[in-house]
Amino acid sequence: MPEHKAASRLRLSGLCFLLQILNILLFAGFVRYSPESSSSLCSPQLNCSRRNQDSGFQHPRFRDVHLQVLLGFGLLVAFLGRYGPGSVAISILIVSFAIQWAILIQGFLYFLNGKIYVGARSMVSADFCTAAVLISSGAVLGRVNPVQMLLLALLEVTLCTLNEYILLSLMGVSDSGRSLTVHTFGAYFGLMVSRILHQPHMDKRKREDQQNTGHQADVFAVVGTIYLWIFWPSFTSATSVHDNAEPWAVLNTYFSLVASTIATFILSPVLYKESTPRMVQIQDATLAGAAVMGMAGEMLVTPFGALITGFLAGLICPLGFRFFTPVLQSRLKIQDTCGVHNVHGLPGILGALLGMLLTLLATADTYGDRLELVFPLVAQGSRTAADQALLQLCALPLTLLLATLGGCLTGAVLKIKALRSPPDKGNLENTGLWEEQVDKEGCDPRTSGKEPGISTLV
Amino acid sequence: MPEHKAASRLRLSGLCFLLQILNILLFAGFVRYSPESSSSLCSPQLNCSRRNQDSGFQHPRFRDVHLQVLLGFGLLVAFLGRYGPGSVAISILIVSFAIQWAILIQGFLYFLNGKIYVGARSMVSADFCTAAVLISSGAVLGRVNPVQMLLLALLEVTLCTLNEYILLSLMGVSDSGRSLTVHTFGAYFGLMVSRILHQPHMDKRKREDQQNTGHQADVFAVVGTIYLWIFWPSFTSATSVHDNAEPWAVLNTYFSLVASTIATFILSPVLYKESTPRMVQIQDATLAGAAVMGMAGEMLVTPFGALITGFLAGLICPLGFRFFTPVLQSRLKIQDTCGVHNVHGLPGILGALLGMLLTLLATADTYGDRLELVFPLVAQGSRTAADQALLQLCALPLTLLLATLGGCLTGAVLKIKALRSPPDKGNLENTGLWEEQVDKEGCDPRTSGKEPGISTLV
Amino acid sequence: MPEHKAASRLRLSGLCFLLQILNILLFAGFVRYSPESSSSLCSPQLNCSRRNQDSGFQHPRFRDVHLQVLLGFGLLVAFLGRYGPGSVAISILIVSFAIQWAILIQGFLYFLNGKIYVGARSMVSADFCTAAVLISSGAVLGRVNPVQMLLLALLEVTLCTLNEYILLSLMGVSDSGRSLTVHTFGAYFGLMVSRILHQPHMDKRKREDQQNTGHQADVFAVVGTIYLWIFWPSFTSATSVHDNAEPWAVLNTYFSLVASTIATFILSPVLYKESTPRMVQIQDATLAGAAVMGMAGEMLVTPFGALITGFLAGLICPLGFRFFTPVLQSRLKIQDTCGVHNVHGLPGILGALLGMLLTLLATADTYGDRLELVFPLVAQGSRTAADQALLQLCALPLTLLLATLGGCLTGAVLKIKALRSPPDKGNLENTGLWEEQVDKEGCDPRTSGKEPGISTLV
Repeated sequence: MPEHKAASRLRLSGLCFLLQILNILLFAGFVRYSPESSSSLCSPQLNCSRRNQDSGFQHPRFRDVHLQVLLGFGLLVAFLGRYGPGSVAISILIVSFAIQWAILIQGFLYFLNGKIYVGARSMVSADFCTAAVLISSGAVLGRVNPVQMLLLALLEVTLCTLNEYILLSLMGVSDSGRSLTVHTFGAYFGLMVSRILHQPHMDKRKREDQQNTGHQADVFAVVGTIYLWIFWPSFTSATSVHDNAEPWAVLNTYFSLVASTIATFILSPVLYKESTPRMVQIQDATLAGAAVMGMAGEMLVTPFGALITGFLAGLICPLGFRFFTPVLQSRLKIQDTCGVHNVHGLPGILGALLGMLLTLLATADTYGDRLELVFPLVAQGSRTAADQALLQLCALPLTLLLATLGGCLTGAVLKIKALRSPPDKGNLENTGLWEEQVDKEGCDPRTSGKEPGISTLV
Repeated sequence: MPEHKAASRLRLSGLCFLLQILNILLFAGFVRYSPESSSSLCSPQLNCSRRNQDSGFQHPRFRDVHLQVLLGFGLLVAFLGRYGPGSVAISILIVSFAIQWAILIQGFLYFLNGKIYVGARSMVSADFCTAAVLISSGAVLGRVNPVQMLLLALLEVTLCTLNEYILLSLMGVSDSGRSLTVHTFGAYFGLMVSRILHQPHMDKRKREDQQNTGHQADVFAVVGTIYLWIFWPSFTSATSVHDNAEPWAVLNTYFSLVASTIATFILSPVLYKESTPRMVQIQDATLAGAAVMGMAGEMLVTPFGALITGFLAGLICPLGFRFFTPVLQSRLKIQDTCGVHNVHGLPGILGALLGMLLTLLATADTYGDRLELVFPLVAQGSRTAADQALLQLCALPLTLLLATLGGCLTGAVLKIKALRSPPDKGNLENTGLWEEQVDKEGCDPRTSGKEPGISTLV
Repeated sequence: MPEHKAASRLRLSGLCFLLQILNILLFAGFVRYSPESSSSLCSPQLNCSRRNQDSGFQHPRFRDVHLQVLLGFGLLVAFLGRYGPGSVAISILIVSFAIQWAILIQGFLYFLNGKIYVGARSMVSADFCTAAVLISSGAVLGRVNPVQMLLLALLEVTLCTLNEYILLSLMGVSDSGRSLTVHTFGAYFGLMVSRILHQPHMDKRKREDQQNTGHQADVFAVVGTIYLWIFWPSFTSATSVHDNAEPWAVLNTYFSLVASTIATFILSPVLYKESTPRMVQIQDATLAGAAVMGMAGEMLVTPFGALITGFLAGLICPLGFRFFTPVLQSRLKIQDTCGVHNVHGLPGILGALLGMLLTLLATADTYGDRLELVFPLVAQGSRTAADQALLQLCALPLTLLLATLGGCLTGAVLKIKALRSPPDKGNLENTGLWEEQVDKEGCDPRTSGKEPGISTLV
């Protein structure tokens, strides 16, 4: 039935066309570049009013934009080792749409009265949203088709922006490196979607032997790890670096990376039979060490705090892979293709708890002038450190709630039959690319031993 | 005949030695670092007088130099997926010579009276020239030997610099991202050389099956695409970013990349049998989306303009590959190994036309203070917007004329028998490396189906 | 004997655990972030008092940190092509520890009275130390086990920091790109360790045919070369770029890279049978061209000087591989796995000699205001140019002396039986990873022809 096949092939094409035309129309109607006097745009958005008072503000802008795609692509590189080039094509499509949607939805939230003014900072913010989508996709990769993925991206961008708006703008929570709004939100959103999409009677096909591609997967993990070491500290601090202050967020992230890497070398021989960890495990530890510094990165005033936190994150991540992922799969029926729960979820929560603790201890003595930058409301006297800490603490369950509810909703939408199983087998062809890649390239070798079936939704 | 072989092997070596000694002597005689008071060097060169009045001028300099090799190497990475490491060795040699020649020739044009003063900006300018050479080489790759390539580089650097001098300095055309002087010039120059080198009676050898290397080519295309997304927006704006203004050129380029990527996902299933485009097609779309923003990047005042333009570029590029490249090959006898006509040529022309249109619409109202930066002569009142638009329009046929004439001339020189077919078969050995690489790595899979013969000039 | 194996496997794990706990305790006890008024920390350390007077000082800081891991990872990428992902895992462990140790030991040297204040600049300095460790490891790779490697790192970091302290702080030597303190020190330290670890009766096992992996090694060399071209000029100038001055160090490094690359194309066909050099040779030339500019980069006042120096370095490097490495191996019993003597050692010495010569010629006429930046003591009149040149000259034998003595000492420690041959064969398993990688991935193809045995220390 070649006609059916052609029809199915053109389905994604047509959908993309309609969505992009819609995007262009919405952009034409609402989005403008921010006027030259850029201070005006910043006030409501991104909680950046406090930044503008800093005279060193003007210079990082270009860099911010320069970095805006880096975050998303850092994740891409990290995933690449596991899924191969085929999956990257779809991921780039998702990124392309998610960036536009994030700008639109942020704009509608922040600029209620008329035009949306975009600039370097809104691009950075849009990219953080895109990163959350990529994290979520890591949980369901291999079990959704591109059309479902697009829908997932649209819904998640909306909810993620909403969560960010509530936390950063309404509650005044300090989360410059996005431990909560990106890492935790993305991980639990993806896990819930994965739970809803779980199909009990799927055939548990045997995976091919992964020895063949072990070498290539390792090569990608090397590239991914180096990429993360080089660029991640800049992500974490994209919205918190000031030219006139020592870049604590950057330094803390480096120390955290260092310690989490060492933790993997300590734990890996205990948990597995290998004397040295595989590169993909080191890459996961690097991600976990960076995720845990999202919120606390600019709050930590001593390097050893970063060393301890990174060390803990580096211990949690392999422990989670060894003991928690199997429980998730067998008991809770949550399949976590990339282990995002261990790499983003748990470290994100740990980072948020640490951030709360540090906020409690924040005084003008320890922070000095920096207090104004990290906790502007506390520095201005409109809020005590304890109040701020309470809000930081409340932000965690709120984020978890929004992520799980949103994930349930999105999963339910993705299960709609029209999306899931098209009349012909054309959709199989679409997902076939994914499935084949996942099978061939080898998903995470640790989870694959436990649960062989990366199944398609036919 | 081992002696012949050795002689041929040493031919390139000896030529490089002579050329480099000559370069060192010319540098020793003429080239100096610019004196500390750097404002003096800038006035005649690179049309940068207008930049100096910007107080934010001093900071981008280091970054400019940092970026200077990025442009060329971005192209290298992009080509890498198609030609393999062997061809990169020669390309790096070409880059090494082209940078030196570009500095010398620019210097002779701009500093007629004595010493050539180089600095960060002349390095950037030299690198733009090198990029044009790399683009041209993409059209003839696999059909010229290294000695011919060196000669091509020398001639093209001369003509490209001349073109740039006429356009930017004499005519005052605004082309900060080099849609015309790099993308259009490089593409049509290379195509004309390819036409002249066409040999009707070449054996049309069968290409090997490319299935083997399909995976690796895709991996390279992933790396190339990510590289372009990360670094290209910085190239486009290398000479146009100001610390005190929102980086419109960067933002516009991002929006253009996003839209052209999506366009590929829309058109690819229509034109080909695959449901998702191959990574190499996404990479081409990324390049096209960036090339089209070269001139208009700093002129567009609304994001949706960039979305539309990028979308069009993303449509033109695969359409060109599908319908235009076969016509070029069969009717016009122009073989375009890498499809530079679709990736650089057509988008460059589109970008130039858009730039002309935008110039026509330029008023102080829409641009504000930015008018001084984008169209200094219009802002100073010495020229009307319509005059500027007319000059921008004239720049296009002028560039095409210079590129085609220069390409004809260069092709004729490269056809000289001494270069083309050395007395022994040593040259075969030289080109063998290329040919084998091209055959093995797989050139562009779309063109290869139409015209199997990547032939050597023996 | 699975128990023995497990015990051996846990040895590295336990050692890492103890060392990291110790690091955390030391950091908790001594290391703090530098207070906001950052000028105070800078005065004794890194010879940077002279930098602070430059008003452009504040901006490069973030970039410095951003670059801090680049240097080490640049080397990693460069080695990657030869040793494969397996060796990178251990290298990342070494980097993780070396950075912490370098900060501690620098701190103890520079801040004798109490707390160690870290900031962006101490991270950069720590990273330079880490680079020296990586260079040394290039000489002994494949013949030491991870535990020995950790010990080597600890000892080398100590001695390297001491050498740097004597040269930069006590003697006031100008070595901003670390020709002496990183390249020369690292190379000769590693060579001496290699000499001491030499075992005459090792079995000279036959290497596998390397044809299989030749393509992949070339791919990595392409990535490594491009990485070096892009990022290395920034390393060389990490501590010497000023926003208000043209970045001579960067420009000189580019010119040097260009010339050394061309030199490889000239010499390679003469020395070997191939008409074009292999990518790994181009990568070595790039490293040599950068190493030679370490000290002289900010002193050279004319571009042609950089062209000549880079050209010489590009000639020395392949000549060393062809004629010097075999002599080292057969006569001096020094096995140089990666050829660090040709890539870092000889160019480093050449760079130091050139720096001395240029110091002798330094006058206020040629340098202008820049004299204050390059030779602050000369500019202040407390030292003549000849005195400075004498000190620069003395720094070379001093560095060589410290490196060789330190290498002997370290080699002797590594030979301790407890480290070398554990009671069981577990250690074999550890080194097996290395050996296998080296065998498979192919070490340097040029040295491998001469001395086949990359042997393990069992």
